[in-house]
Amino acid sequence: MAKSSAKKSAAKKPAAKGAASKGAASKPGRMIYYFGATRCDGDGTMKAIIGGKGANLAQMTKIGLPVPPGFTITTQMCIDYYTTGKKFPKGLEDDIAHYVKMLEKETGKKFGDPAKALLVSVRSGARDSMPGMMDTILNLGLNDKTVDGLQKATGNGRFAWDSYRRFIQMYGDVVMGVQKRHENEHDPFEEVMEHLKAEVKVHEDTDLTEENLHELVRRYQKLIKERTGKSFPQDPFEQLLGAIGAVFGSWMNERAIIYRRKYKIPDEWGTAVNVQSMVFGNMGDDCATGVAFTRDPATGEDVFYGEYLINAQGEDVVAGVRTPKPVVEMANDPEFASTYKQLEKVREKLEKKFGDVQDFEFTVEKKKLYMLQTRNGKRTALAYVKIAHDMVKQKLMTPEHAIQSADPDALSQLLAPIFDRADYEKAQKSSNLLTTGLAAGPGAATGLLVFSAAKAEELAEKGKKVVLARVETSPEDLRGMIAAEGILTSRGGVSSHAALVARQMGKVCVVGAGAISIDYAKGTLICGSTTLREGEDVSINGSTGEVFAGSIKTADSELKQVLVSNTMKPEDSEVYQYYAFIMKLADKYRKLGIRTNADTPEQVRHAIAFGAEGIGLTRTEHMFFEGDRIDAMREMILAETLDARREALAKLLPYQRDDFEGIFRALEGRPATIRFLDPPLHEFVPHDEKAQADLAKKLKLPVDLVHRRVEALHEFNPMLGHRGCRLGVSYPEISAMQARAVFEAAVKVQKDGIKVKPEIMIPLVGFKKELDNQLEIVHAVAAQVAKETGVKVKYLVGTMIEIPRGALTADEIAESAEFFSFGTNDLTQTCLGMSRDDMGSFLQKYTDLGIFKANPFASIDVTGVGSLMQTAVEKGRKTRPDIKLGICGEHGGDPHSVLFCHHLGLDYVSCSPFRLPVARLAAAQAALGKTY
Amino acid sequence: MAKSSAKKSAAKKPAAKGAASKGAASKPGRMIYYFGATRCDGDGTMKAIIGGKGANLAQMTKIGLPVPPGFTITTQMCIDYYTTGKKFPKGLEDDIAHYVKMLEKETGKKFGDPAKALLVSVRSGARDSMPGMMDTILNLGLNDKTVDGLQKATGNGRFAWDSYRRFIQMYGDVVMGVQKRHENEHDPFEEVMEHLKAEVKVHEDTDLTEENLHELVRRYQKLIKERTGKSFPQDPFEQLLGAIGAVFGSWMNERAIIYRRKYKIPDEWGTAVNVQSMVFGNMGDDCATGVAFTRDPATGEDVFYGEYLINAQGEDVVAGVRTPKPVVEMANDPEFASTYKQLEKVREKLEKKFGDVQDFEFTVEKKKLYMLQTRNGKRTALAYVKIAHDMVKQKLMTPEHAIQSADPDALSQLLAPIFDRADYEKAQKSSNLLTTGLAAGPGAATGLLVFSAAKAEELAEKGKKVVLARVETSPEDLRGMIAAEGILTSRGGVSSHAALVARQMGKVCVVGAGAISIDYAKGTLICGSTTLREGEDVSINGSTGEVFAGSIKTADSELKQVLVSNTMKPEDSEVYQYYAFIMKLADKYRKLGIRTNADTPEQVRHAIAFGAEGIGLTRTEHMFFEGDRIDAMREMILAETLDARREALAKLLPYQRDDFEGIFRALEGRPATIRFLDPPLHEFVPHDEKAQADLAKKLKLPVDLVHRRVEALHEFNPMLGHRGCRLGVSYPEISAMQARAVFEAAVKVQKDGIKVKPEIMIPLVGFKKELDNQLEIVHAVAAQVAKETGVKVKYLVGTMIEIPRGALTADEIAESAEFFSFGTNDLTQTCLGMSRDDMGSFLQKYTDLGIFKANPFASIDVTGVGSLMQTAVEKGRKTRPDIKLGICGEHGGDPHSVLFCHHLGLDYVSCSPFRLPVARLAAAQAALGKTY
Repeated sequence: MAKSSAKKSAAKKPAAKGAASKGAASKPGRMIYYFGATRCDGDGTMKAIIGGKGANLAQMTKIGLPVPPGFTITTQMCIDYYTTGKKFPKGLEDDIAHYVKMLEKETGKKFGDPAKALLVSVRSGARDSMPGMMDTILNLGLNDKTVDGLQKATGNGRFAWDSYRRFIQMYGDVVMGVQKRHENEHDPFEEVMEHLKAEVKVHEDTDLTEENLHELVRRYQKLIKERTGKSFPQDPFEQLLGAIGAVFGSWMNERAIIYRRKYKIPDEWGTAVNVQSMVFGNMGDDCATGVAFTRDPATGEDVFYGEYLINAQGEDVVAGVRTPKPVVEMANDPEFASTYKQLEKVREKLEKKFGDVQDFEFTVEKKKLYMLQTRNGKRTALAYVKIAHDMVKQKLMTPEHAIQSADPDALSQLLAPIFDRADYEKAQKSSNLLTTGLAAGPGAATGLLVFSAAKAEELAEKGKKVVLARVETSPEDLRGMIAAEGILTSRGGVSSHAALVARQMGKVCVVGAGAISIDYAKGTLICGSTTLREGEDVSINGSTGEVFAGSIKTADSELKQVLVSNTMKPEDSEVYQYYAFIMKLADKYRKLGIRTNADTPEQVRHAIAFGAEGIGLTRTEHMFFEGDRIDAMREMILAETLDARREALAKLLPYQRDDFEGIFRALEGRPATIRFLDPPLHEFVPHDEKAQADLAKKLKLPVDLVHRRVEALHEFNPMLGHRGCRLGVSYPEISAMQARAVFEAAVKVQKDGIKVKPEIMIPLVGFKKELDNQLEIVHAVAAQVAKETGVKVKYLVGTMIEIPRGALTADEIAESAEFFSFGTNDLTQTCLGMSRDDMGSFLQKYTDLGIFKANPFASIDVTGVGSLMQTAVEKGRKTRPDIKLGICGEHGGDPHSVLFCHHLGLDYVSCSPFRLPVARLAAAQAALGKTY
Repeated sequence: MAKSSAKKSAAKKPAAKGAASKGAASKPGRMIYYFGATRCDGDGTMKAIIGGKGANLAQMTKIGLPVPPGFTITTQMCIDYYTTGKKFPKGLEDDIAHYVKMLEKETGKKFGDPAKALLVSVRSGARDSMPGMMDTILNLGLNDKTVDGLQKATGNGRFAWDSYRRFIQMYGDVVMGVQKRHENEHDPFEEVMEHLKAEVKVHEDTDLTEENLHELVRRYQKLIKERTGKSFPQDPFEQLLGAIGAVFGSWMNERAIIYRRKYKIPDEWGTAVNVQSMVFGNMGDDCATGVAFTRDPATGEDVFYGEYLINAQGEDVVAGVRTPKPVVEMANDPEFASTYKQLEKVREKLEKKFGDVQDFEFTVEKKKLYMLQTRNGKRTALAYVKIAHDMVKQKLMTPEHAIQSADPDALSQLLAPIFDRADYEKAQKSSNLLTTGLAAGPGAATGLLVFSAAKAEELAEKGKKVVLARVETSPEDLRGMIAAEGILTSRGGVSSHAALVARQMGKVCVVGAGAISIDYAKGTLICGSTTLREGEDVSINGSTGEVFAGSIKTADSELKQVLVSNTMKPEDSEVYQYYAFIMKLADKYRKLGIRTNADTPEQVRHAIAFGAEGIGLTRTEHMFFEGDRIDAMREMILAETLDARREALAKLLPYQRDDFEGIFRALEGRPATIRFLDPPLHEFVPHDEKAQADLAKKLKLPVDLVHRRVEALHEFNPMLGHRGCRLGVSYPEISAMQARAVFEAAVKVQKDGIKVKPEIMIPLVGFKKELDNQLEIVHAVAAQVAKETGVKVKYLVGTMIEIPRGALTADEIAESAEFFSFGTNDLTQTCLGMSRDDMGSFLQKYTDLGIFKANPFASIDVTGVGSLMQTAVEKGRKTRPDIKLGICGEHGGDPHSVLFCHHLGLDYVSCSPFRLPVARLAAAQAALGKTY
């Protein structure tokens, strides 16, 4: 599936990202969008303007779903809030007042009216969902007077006062900043409550009487006054402005920033703010709240999936404090059976309208269903391929959306190990199987048990695999969850924070394993008679929910068994079917060619199975390390005369020729980019005395000569030293040997009727004359071999563009080079003046401070390195319009970088075999217009 | 003398150099320019078209000097010769034939006519003189018949046949390639002659009879036929075409290429070819040949200088085979007294017309004077300043030419050491004074005696100082002469190859020390009873011609004594007067500001004496190595907590403040660019176990902690590691300490009524956010110090542009930076991906192959690094039109790089104190239009 035609026309100037997104977000003037029965200003396409939540609330309103009315403040207001020094943009307050009036009119309620108080929720809503990262405030509008109105309206005094004290607590914390002042302090509101509970001698919050709650409210207000010098505001409009400001402010809190770094969401997007009239799932047993997915987001099964809690607020489900019931059980609950029927219709309507699996929140207030939110459901890679496959076939999803909605990076989850069958079955039969919780993130994880995010990070940094066990998780645990192989919680359902995050990150996850009890202080996990301590082995199966003591061997994933080890037939694997469906779709759309970095025939075969259309990088030096070859290589390096070097090279020639022959055969006619010797020679010689003595003996050389030669090869900055084509220029006989190996192998394979397309790549070229020097050797050897064998081989000679000077003089270099391949690893090192091996000492700091938007060695630094690449593309094409352009740095398998390469107009990307599916999918997304 | 205004308008796009020079050279169509009494096509302005020699021959013809007629083939023909694969351009042969006819007409002679044979010389002539680098052929037109004609015309058979055999020998070698085939072989023509001499039992060439020469001609022709299979051509026109082709070919011979590399003459210029009718200085004792300078090129004295040989050809003077007589002695020789008078008039006429000292060749053929060549005389730096001073005052030279004709690099000769007075006087009185030769290159050299260029190179590479002694030198010795401190020959005069090259390179040189005898085979130099062997110390005084056994202490040059050590008063030094005259002139023209790189008050004072207008780079880290400071620095580095680090920094603060105070005072109101800590921390800590143990004891730390911390600081590529602003970002408290030291020192000095202009420079910035991070610290500290002291200090904050990303994102960085200073050392390392410390292994190879036009760390790589600088200038000015731009890499003192910086539109260059005169002169040349 060669895609290398027509993409030259696609080569457009990559636009500055900030500018583009800004353009989309700013529709100047309009600050607020209303949604309600009387009027609905927005719709589902307006995510950039009113955020994902706001757009979907408007869309649901438009298609007649029961959405409590409200309004959305645009993301632009958040951006303006920051550019004006954390002040409300001019006119916004007036506008808010205007829309509050509109809301009062539609609901027939009024801010501060004790008889019919308007209560609202205030929630963030960024363009892309950032669940749990920013602040939320509920029950806003309650004050010393309206609390009575709520009591009268619901006939439930305890409920009204409990709502009020929750609101004060939330508001005091989030808006007024009454929080614990030291790490060791308790939350000040919790402390007040604990005191009161002790005074009135009750244990549970729920045991507090209505009168106790009156007192608690009084004490909370006193606490706020003492701490802040300000009174808790009684004016609902003042409350509202405070809450909106707090949501804006939470856009820049630490965990939101960390989340954005991880998911490459720009700081410049800002969040919208949704103000919505309150409904209550906690007014009694005919009330409920729930979170549901239109399909199973872990497995992708076409089943209604989710859970609900009776007499609860939405937050209770996500917080995982109580373990809720599966949503399908509503059907059997007389109180909610009709609501369930309604929900099933909602499920159908949502998938049809939104064209994707929806993750939605609902509340039942006195048997009446309200929709509070919907969004495309985050899902595992397994669920992604199955859902995309199913929904496209069911014509519920467009094929374009199936591609566009993928997280290409997540595809590698399909290659993540599963448990080794035998070892797993043994464990299942043993007493090691402790319990079965809820399967929340498929796959197998085995590692050291840890109970804190900090410990997880600490051990992971040392290269240990860990499983993080928590009673429940919260956003503070995010880094630890990233560090862990698997996550286990004893509380919370499949919509809990742990499950949600795990699904999104592709982590193995088991939640709500109620049989286990975790004691943080003692550092123990107890299940029945088994006690596990921190640091002991534990294993979890996120596909079944099983939890095991001890470690279990892991094995190839199903996909690997089909594609790599051939231990499973394609037709026997459903996963493979879904995967193949998506890949076929991706290949239909993508314009970029896809090649692989591979050094052995075996790697080539795997890569072809994963869709490689050729080799983008063969590192010939890797071949010199095997077996006896290293001796000949060392002999060559230690040679002091040209003749001695030639003699050693003659020994290497047959090895190298065999290597190339194997690769050419495995490629079956596909092109192979072969890079000539690149690393500095000291990488091939031993540096300790013992090994040097052995080598001297083996090569029959004086020890001190070996020592002296190795010393002479020492470099202060080997990355910038005597390597790449500088070796070939210094020792032309090495290049001649490598060229001979290529051509002799090519002739041999070609004689067997197999096409061979060698593309010889000269590394580290900064000067055209370097390339010319090497080119002369290659052409001379090619002519010699043709003369000797009578067989001509067609070949290309090109260069890596991997130092700035190469990019800057690409017009000169293209006079000689038939292709360029961007070596973005070295290009990043030189463009940024940063050694990848040495940046560990400041990488974290640079990421935290936002100096790096992403690790530049993982994802191309578009502004810096990208501009060099653009210069090289423009200058190269100017000299040689049909020059072949590719990338072979590790960035070739990074989706963000693949998008950039597409828009830069490259012909192909090349990456390691297992990243090929990721690259194919990202290339298709790019062709469908996704930008970097 | 602030020059920082108006140069923004000078900021023009540096044009591609090749294109510009090409444009000037190609006047399509015209291939040949004639010069003679009947017609003269060229003139002195046409050097680019007909080469320096051709232009000046035409010019001399025009002003009525007696020039033998001839014609010049353009440089463009040479360029075309190479682009068409070493073939004569179309039409050139016909054109040559046409001009030969014209020459025959003017001279009344004819090619091949035995009665009146036209004989010509064929010589190269590049735009800039490249003496001795290319081939020359004399007596062309002689054949078996015309030799008889010559005999009849001159009545001198021996002369005619000797001329013929010389021509055959030269032609056979240069055109037909009959040369020695191995290093150890003798020249084949010499061998034939030696055989003959043995047969006829004579010792000297001159003892061969006319008959012997007949035989020799026969044997030479036989040799050519045997070796080449071709006969020596009898047709003069065929001879001519062969000779012209050989001259074209010699443009690309190895020694010409090496010479061009050294003097940065582009390969693309090509050479012209001059075909001129022969005159003979060797027809008898009323004939002579000579080389003269209109003034002394070694000292600049206004005296007629040069030498002549009676009955000789011009080549004999340069070759140094016979030691000639001073030209002024002609006046006393009855045979040549009238010619001398004529020569004195020529001397006057030449200086007047050419406006500079002329170096000319003449021949006297039977008492008649002929001018064969003139060119601006190469001279020592001492001669340069004196001649420029004198001739401008005499109104013989324009001030612009005085500046333009300088070789700025050579100025550093004026700073080269002279002999220590006491030690020198002692040596003069001792038996160590061996002899006095001809003073040919002023200055004092002392070093190890060597007899071969190879040995000179070998020892110089090991850091030894050597004096190269040869009987005479030839172009093959060039590299050795470059490597040597001084050059000594036993034969040859002040126009010999050795003298000429030494003057041009500013090498100390004594020639024609006839009392010494050098035996290459034995490796000895004998003078009287003294025998010196290779490797023993020898000293020469190139200002007096003295040769000493043993070493003599050296001392500061006169200029240094005036400007640096203040041991001599300006009014007592003539050299200083000339120097000051030139510098004043340079400062009048230059637009670039001139700053210095200096780290101590003493350096600052020296720099001001040499003309610095401020500091362009103070490396604060150098200050940390002195005395006790290194302990505090190490304590800071080894600190494991912020508090411990702050404590150590507090100890460093007073030191650093004192440093800055001293510098501010020494600057007396001039600006100071202060770079914050740059090198990686491991440069400050000890790496051997013993020193680590001592340090641990001193700082009262466990040894293993010290060891561990030092280990942790190890980096694979320190150049690309944790350094520059990365340190300041990681340890903001270091930057805060440095900022405090700057501002506290500034306040203190400012209180004393001295202006202070600190310009704080953040190193290694690649991301705007890095700079912002450091800027915040600097501004905060500035405000604190102002508050504490009540004194406000005006300051700038800017950055070094020294990694490609900094240059590429200069528009972003300029939002925060008030100035840029190009750190071209690191910018070259990163742009080229080459570590300066590690390039030794391939530098020579890269230079020889022409991959490097010049060492990129000595002279800015305009194509690569220069394009990054241009991007940074354009982007920086776009964001901040008044941004201050400078350079502080070592390139700031390289003339070629200064030219580039001027045309790039920088505000200033900064270099080490002793390079300041060079930079001032180069800046003036740039302002006068000289391009890089």
